[in-house]
Amino acid sequence: MTKLTLKTGVAGLLAVVAPSLVRASEADIHIPDLTQVRFDGLGGVNGVTLMYIGIALCIVGAIFGLIQYKQTKALAVHASMASVSHTIWETCKTYLFTQGKFLAILWVLIGACMVYYFGFLGHNSALNVGVILLASVLGILGSYGVAWFGIRINTVANSRTAFSALKGNPLNTLFIPLRSGMSVGLLLVCVELFFMICILVFLPRELVGPCFIGFAIGESLGASVLRICGGIFTKIADIGSDLMKIVFKLPEDDPKNPGVIADCTGDNAGDSVGPTADGFETYGVTGVALIAFLALALAESAELCAVLIVWLFVMRALMIVTSLVSYFLNQGLSRAKYGRLKDFDFEAPLTHLVWITSAVSIGITFLASYFLLAHQTVGGETVNPALWWVLSVIISCGTVAGALIPEFTKVFVSTNSRHVKEVTNCSQHGGASLNILSGLVAGNFSAFWMGLVIMLLMAASYYFSQNPALLALMPAKFLFAAPIFAFGLVAFGFLGMGPVTIAVDSYGPVTDNAQSVYELSQIEAKPGIAAEIERDFGFQPDFENAKYQLEKGDGAGNTFKATAKPVLIGTAVVGATTMVFGIIMLLQKLYEAQLASGLAGPFKEVVAALSIVQPEIILGLIMGGAVIYWFTGASIQAVVTGAYSAVVYIKKHIKLDSTTASAKDSKEVVRICTVYAQKGMWNIFIVVFCFALALPFFNAYFFIGYLIGIAFFGLFQAIFMANAGGAWDNAKKIVEVELRQKGTDLHAATVVGDTVGDPFKDTSSVAMNPVIKFTTLFGLLAVEIAVTMKDQHVKTAIGVIFFLIALIFAYRSFYSMRIPEDAKA
Amino acid sequence: MTKLTLKTGVAGLLAVVAPSLVRASEADIHIPDLTQVRFDGLGGVNGVTLMYIGIALCIVGAIFGLIQYKQTKALAVHASMASVSHTIWETCKTYLFTQGKFLAILWVLIGACMVYYFGFLGHNSALNVGVILLASVLGILGSYGVAWFGIRINTVANSRTAFSALKGNPLNTLFIPLRSGMSVGLLLVCVELFFMICILVFLPRELVGPCFIGFAIGESLGASVLRICGGIFTKIADIGSDLMKIVFKLPEDDPKNPGVIADCTGDNAGDSVGPTADGFETYGVTGVALIAFLALALAESAELCAVLIVWLFVMRALMIVTSLVSYFLNQGLSRAKYGRLKDFDFEAPLTHLVWITSAVSIGITFLASYFLLAHQTVGGETVNPALWWVLSVIISCGTVAGALIPEFTKVFVSTNSRHVKEVTNCSQHGGASLNILSGLVAGNFSAFWMGLVIMLLMAASYYFSQNPALLALMPAKFLFAAPIFAFGLVAFGFLGMGPVTIAVDSYGPVTDNAQSVYELSQIEAKPGIAAEIERDFGFQPDFENAKYQLEKGDGAGNTFKATAKPVLIGTAVVGATTMVFGIIMLLQKLYEAQLASGLAGPFKEVVAALSIVQPEIILGLIMGGAVIYWFTGASIQAVVTGAYSAVVYIKKHIKLDSTTASAKDSKEVVRICTVYAQKGMWNIFIVVFCFALALPFFNAYFFIGYLIGIAFFGLFQAIFMANAGGAWDNAKKIVEVELRQKGTDLHAATVVGDTVGDPFKDTSSVAMNPVIKFTTLFGLLAVEIAVTMKDQHVKTAIGVIFFLIALIFAYRSFYSMRIPEDAKA
Repeated sequence: MTKLTLKTGVAGLLAVVAPSLVRASEADIHIPDLTQVRFDGLGGVNGVTLMYIGIALCIVGAIFGLIQYKQTKALAVHASMASVSHTIWETCKTYLFTQGKFLAILWVLIGACMVYYFGFLGHNSALNVGVILLASVLGILGSYGVAWFGIRINTVANSRTAFSALKGNPLNTLFIPLRSGMSVGLLLVCVELFFMICILVFLPRELVGPCFIGFAIGESLGASVLRICGGIFTKIADIGSDLMKIVFKLPEDDPKNPGVIADCTGDNAGDSVGPTADGFETYGVTGVALIAFLALALAESAELCAVLIVWLFVMRALMIVTSLVSYFLNQGLSRAKYGRLKDFDFEAPLTHLVWITSAVSIGITFLASYFLLAHQTVGGETVNPALWWVLSVIISCGTVAGALIPEFTKVFVSTNSRHVKEVTNCSQHGGASLNILSGLVAGNFSAFWMGLVIMLLMAASYYFSQNPALLALMPAKFLFAAPIFAFGLVAFGFLGMGPVTIAVDSYGPVTDNAQSVYELSQIEAKPGIAAEIERDFGFQPDFENAKYQLEKGDGAGNTFKATAKPVLIGTAVVGATTMVFGIIMLLQKLYEAQLASGLAGPFKEVVAALSIVQPEIILGLIMGGAVIYWFTGASIQAVVTGAYSAVVYIKKHIKLDSTTASAKDSKEVVRICTVYAQKGMWNIFIVVFCFALALPFFNAYFFIGYLIGIAFFGLFQAIFMANAGGAWDNAKKIVEVELRQKGTDLHAATVVGDTVGDPFKDTSSVAMNPVIKFTTLFGLLAVEIAVTMKDQHVKTAIGVIFFLIALIFAYRSFYSMRIPEDAKA
Repeated sequence: MTKLTLKTGVAGLLAVVAPSLVRASEADIHIPDLTQVRFDGLGGVNGVTLMYIGIALCIVGAIFGLIQYKQTKALAVHASMASVSHTIWETCKTYLFTQGKFLAILWVLIGACMVYYFGFLGHNSALNVGVILLASVLGILGSYGVAWFGIRINTVANSRTAFSALKGNPLNTLFIPLRSGMSVGLLLVCVELFFMICILVFLPRELVGPCFIGFAIGESLGASVLRICGGIFTKIADIGSDLMKIVFKLPEDDPKNPGVIADCTGDNAGDSVGPTADGFETYGVTGVALIAFLALALAESAELCAVLIVWLFVMRALMIVTSLVSYFLNQGLSRAKYGRLKDFDFEAPLTHLVWITSAVSIGITFLASYFLLAHQTVGGETVNPALWWVLSVIISCGTVAGALIPEFTKVFVSTNSRHVKEVTNCSQHGGASLNILSGLVAGNFSAFWMGLVIMLLMAASYYFSQNPALLALMPAKFLFAAPIFAFGLVAFGFLGMGPVTIAVDSYGPVTDNAQSVYELSQIEAKPGIAAEIERDFGFQPDFENAKYQLEKGDGAGNTFKATAKPVLIGTAVVGATTMVFGIIMLLQKLYEAQLASGLAGPFKEVVAALSIVQPEIILGLIMGGAVIYWFTGASIQAVVTGAYSAVVYIKKHIKLDSTTASAKDSKEVVRICTVYAQKGMWNIFIVVFCFALALPFFNAYFFIGYLIGIAFFGLFQAIFMANAGGAWDNAKKIVEVELRQKGTDLHAATVVGDTVGDPFKDTSSVAMNPVIKFTTLFGLLAVEIAVTMKDQHVKTAIGVIFFLIALIFAYRSFYSMRIPEDAKA
C-alpha cells in the first residue's frame, strides 16, 4: 500500500512536515530539570545532589580500582616471568595503537553522519555540534581507554599469578586474577557512570539528549571494532598455535612455537579488550536506551520523568557499593573456608561471588526503590504505593537472569556437565566427526533452554508491567509501551551485578596467560632456580603443584569466560526493543503530523505498521536473518584464512631443534594476525554500516523489521555458538586433565573440536552484541536522515547505492579473503 | 494489557461468542459453487468441466508414470545386480512397514484432536466427521503410497543403471535414473491433484473445506514422520559405514562392511522416501493454503472466488503437460547433443531440463491465465484487464526462484564452486579443523545470499500485489492481505516445475545406489563374466569406464539433491504467511464478534495485535527460534548416538578376512538404525505436537508469533545446514575424484567434514519444511480448540500441562539419547 501513495504523497507531505520534524527530532529526547525534583523518602533531598553523590561514588570506585592495580603491581614476581609479561604487554600496545588509528578513521565516517544529522538537519550551532561530537569521542575513548587499562593490569597480573602459584597457596593465587578483574570491572562502571552523570548534570539541557546519543554511538563503535578485530586476531593466533600441537606433537605453550606470543597477545586482545569494551558499551547503551525511553514516553510529565531518571542513576551508582561489599564479603568467606586448603574447587569462590552479589543487588534494589519511590509525590500527588516494588521485581527478573544464565551455561560447557562428557565420549569411537556433531548438539540445546529462560523472565516482567502502578505511569497512547519499558529494565537488571560480571569474565584471560607465562619463562630449567627463589623471595617453590594449580585456574577461567557471554548478548536483545522505541516514536510523530496536515502520505499508524502481516516487516525480518548468517560466515572466514596463513608460516619457519622461537618469527605471526583481523574488520564494518544506512532509505518500517531480525537471530546464533565452543573447549580439557591422554588420537579429535569452537565462541558470537547495538543506535540517525529527504527517487537511489556497496563488501568478505593461490599446494 | 482484562472478560465474552464461533469456524472455508462459473475466454466452458479435464490429465499422467516403471523394469540387468537390488528392496520394505505402524499410532493422536474439533466443536454429524477423518487418512496414505512407489521404482532402477553403465553409453545410463525420477514426480503430482479435485468436485460443499484441512494435516503428518525418521536412519547408516573407511581404510561400498546394506537402504529411506513424501505434502499444502485464503478473503464474492479457484487448479493440471513436454523436449535435445559422446558434463542434461521446464512453465502460465482471466466477467462486470498478467508475473517470480535457487545452490556446493575449492584447500594444511570451519562458512554465506534472493523475489511480488488490478480483488478490510496472497502465489510458482523438481531430486539416490549395487554385486570378480555378458546380453562390458561413469553420475546426483532442498524449504516459508492467514482471520472475526457484543474481551484488532511492539509477538518469535535450535540439536543427537552404536557394533563384528559381511550383521546394523530413528522420532514428534497444542492455550497471538518464528528461523537454519553439508560432501568428492587422494590425511580430513555434513543436509535441514507446515496446519485446529474454551484457568492449566510434557521430551531428546554408559570405554 505504501508504494501506491509513496511517490505522490511524499513530496508534498514532507514539505509540510519537515520544519516540524526538525524540532521533533533529536531535541525530542528532552531531559527534564533535575534540580526541581525532591525526594520525600530521603528527607527532601534534591535530584542533583543525589547525582553529585553518584559522582563521588564513581571517584571512590575508580580510586579503589587504581589502588588494586598498584597492589597487584607490587606483588612479588621473578624477573624471567616479568620479562615475558613485558613482551606480551609490548605486543599488545602495538596492537592497541593499530586499533586506535583504525578507530580514528571509522570515527570520521560516523562523525560525518553526525555532523549532517545534528548540524544540517537539527540546525544546531557549530559549538553544539562540536560538543556532541566530543561526546562521541568520549564514548570511543571510554571503550578504548578502559580496554587499555584492562590489558595493562592483566599483563601485570599474569606473571604475578604464575609466580604466586609456586608458593602453593591456591586461594592467594586465585585472588590475583580476581582482584585484577574486579579492578577492571569497577573502573569500567565508574568511568562510564561518571561520564553519563557529567553529561546529565553539567551540559545545557537541550544538549543532554543528543550528547547521550553521540556518547552511546561512540561507545558502540569502539566496542564493535575492538570486539570484532580482537576476536579475529585472537583466534587466528590460537588456531595457528593449536594446530602445531597436532602436527609436531608440541606441548601447550612450547617456546619453540612462534605462534605462542601471538596467542598470549590474542588472549588479551580478544578475551580482555573485547569484553571490557563490550561491557563498557553495554552499560552505557542500556542506560541511554532507558533514559531515552523515559524522556520520550513521559515527555508530558516532566517531574515523573525526572524522578525515574534519578532513580535509575541512583541504582547504577549503588552498583559500585554493592560490588565492593559483595567482593569483600566473598573474600572473607573464601579465606575462612579455603584459606588453608591445598586443593579445592576453583570455580566455587567465583560462583559464590556471583550469587552473593546477586542477592545483595536485589536487596539494595528493593531498599533504594523503597526510599526513593514509596513516599514520593509527583505534581502534588503521591505515586502509586506499589510502584517501588513493581519496578524492583522487574529489575530483579534481570538480576536473577544474570545469576541464572551462568548456571545454565555450566549445564552445557562445564567439565562436569553431561553435554561435555557426551562430546568426550563421542570422540572415543567417533573421532573428530562425532566430536564436532556432539558439540553442535550442546550448542543447539543451550540455545533452546537459554532462549526459554530469557523468554520466561521476559514474560514475567511483562506480567508485572501490567500492574496498575506501572500502567498508571504511561500516557494513554503509550500504554502499549509498558512491556517495552519492562524489557529495558530487565536488561538493566541483567547488568545489576556490573563489576562482578566483568571481574569473573576478566579472570579467564589472566589465568590463561599465567599458564603461558610460566611455560615461556622456562623457569624450571634455570640452573639453581630453587635456591635463588628461596634467597630472593623467601619460599621453596613447588613446580609440579604450580603447574597443576595454573591448569585448574585456567579451567575455571574457561567456564566463567563462557558464562559472561550469554549475559552480554542477552542484554543486547532484551534491550533492543527499548532502543528501537526511539525510532518507533519518531515514525508515530510523523504519522500524526501527516494526519494533522490532512495529507495521505507514506506514514502509517505505527503499531499496525509494524505488524507481522505487513510485508515490510516480513521482508525486514528475513533481511535481518540473512545479515546475521553473513556476519557469522564473514567473521569465521577471516579467522580461517588468517589461521591458514599463520599455519603455513609457522610450519615453514619453526625450528624444532632450538629451545625458543626467534623474535622475528614471533613478530611475523603477530603481523599476520593483525593484517587479517584488519582486513576482515574492514569488510565487516562497511557492510554493517552500509546496510544500516541503506535500508531506512527504502522504508523505515522495513528497517525496524531488520533491527528486530538481527536482534533475535543474533541472540540465538550467539548463544548457540558461544556454548558449542565452550563445550568443545572443555571436552578437550577433560581429555588433557582428567584422562591425561595428550598426544593420542582421542586428544587430536578433541583439538579439532576446540579449534572449530575458537571462532564460534570468541569471534562470531561475542561480536553480535555490539554489532546489533551499533546498528540500532546508528539507525536512529539513519532513519531520521532518510525520512527528512523529500524526493523518493533520490532516497531510493541513495538506498540502492549503499545497498550495492554493502553487497560488494559482503561478496569481498569471502571472495577477497580466500586462501592465497600460491599457498594451495 | 491482555492480562488485565483476560480473566474478567473471557468468561462472559465467550458465552456470547461461542455459538457464533462454531458457525464461524471450519465451515468458514466456504467453497463456492463451481458449476455456476463459465469461462468466457474458453467459449463459456463450465468450471466443473475444466475440473473433469483435470482429472483426465491426472489419469494420463499417472498412466505415463506407471508405463515408465514397466519400461524401467524391463531393462536388461545381470542377476548378481538384480539380487543386490532385491536385498535392498526387501530391507526397505521392512523399514516402510515399521514406519506404517508408527504413522498409524500417530494418526490416532491427531485423529482424536480432529474428532474433538470437527465433531464436538463443529457439531458435524458422525458421518461427516468420518469423511473428514478419511480425508486425513488419504493424506497420510498419499504421502506413504507415493513414497512406497518411489522406493519401488528406485530399487528397480538402481541395478539397471549399474548394468547399463557397462555398455558404455553414458547418456542412456543417465536416462534410467532420470526416467525413474520423472515417473515418481509425475505420479506424485497426479495422485495429489486427483485427490484434491475429487474432494472439490464430488463432496458436499460444506465438507470440502474441512476435508482439505484434514487431507493437508494427514499429508503433513506423513511427510514429517517420513522425513525425520528417514533422515535419522540414513545418516546413522551413512556415518557408520563412512567412519569405517577411515578406521580400517576400507574402500567405498566394500561388501565386507556390514554397514553398506543399511547405507543403501538409508539412501532410499532418506533421499527417496523423504523428498517424495515431502514433495507430495508441499504440493498439497500450498494448494490448500491458497484455496483457504481465497475462500476466506473473498467470502463475499463467491463467483470471483470460484473463478480464481478454478484458475489455480487449471494451472496445477497444466503442470503435468508442461513437465511431459519439457521432458521429451530435453530428451530429444540431449540425444542430439550427447547421444554419441563417451564423456560429457553429467549435470548439463539435468540443468537444461530445469531451465526448459521453467521457460515452458512461465509461458503456459501466461497463456492459460490469459484465456481464463483476460476476458472473464464476474457478476456481469469484466475483471480488470491487467489481472491476468499481474497474477502471471507474481507466479513467475516463484517459478524463476525455482530455477534460480538451484543455480545459487551450485555457487556453494558444486565441485566447481570457489566455496567448495576453499574447503578442499583449507583441509590441506588446516586438516579437519579448517575443513569444518570452511564448510560452515559456505553454509553461512549461502544463507545470506539465498535469503536475499528469496527476499528480493518476495519484494517484487509485493510490488506487483499493489497493482490496482489485484487490489481491486480484495475487499476493503483485507487490502492488507494482498501481499500475503502474492506470497502464496510465489510459493505456488516455486512449485511450478513440479514433477521435474522431484525428478532431478530423485535422480540422486538412484545413482548413489547404482554405485553401491555395482560394488556389492562383485560382478568384476565373477569368473568368465565378460563372456557371459556377451553371450546373454550381446555386448562387451567395460568395467573401468562403468565405474567412472557411475562415480560421475553420483556427483551430479549430489549436486541436484542439494538444489531441491532450498526450493522445498523456500515454499514452506513463503507459504507460511498464507497458511497463518486462516488463524488471523479467525482472531479478527472473534474481535468483531466481541465488538458487536459490546464486551471488552481478550481479542484485539488483529493487525495491531500482531505488531512486533506487542510482547506476545516478541515472546512468540523467541519461542520459535528456541524450538528451531532445539529441533536441530535433537535430530543431530539421534544421528550421533545411533551412529556411535553402529560404529561400535561394526568395529566389533567386521571380519576383515572375509569377502562379504554376514547377513546377520548387516541386518543388525539396519536394526540399530531403525531403533534410533524411531526413538529420535518419538521425542521430536511429541515435542512438536505438544508445543503446537500448548502455546495457543496461553495466547493465540503468542502462537502466531511462534509460527512466524519457526518459519523464519527454520528457513535460514535449513539453507545454512543444507548447503554447508553439500559443500563438505563435494569437497570430499574433489579429493577422491580430481585429486585421487583416497586414504591420505587430506582425504581423512574431508571425510570428517562429510560426516558432519550428513545430518546437516539430510536430517535436520530437510525435516524443517514438513515440521513447520505441520505445526502451522495443526495450529489452525489448536487455536480454535483453545479459543472456544471458556475458562481461562482451565486453558492455562491445559497449556501448562502440554508445555511441561513438551519440555520433558525436549529434555529426553538429549538426556535419554546419550551414548550408552557401557559403550564408553
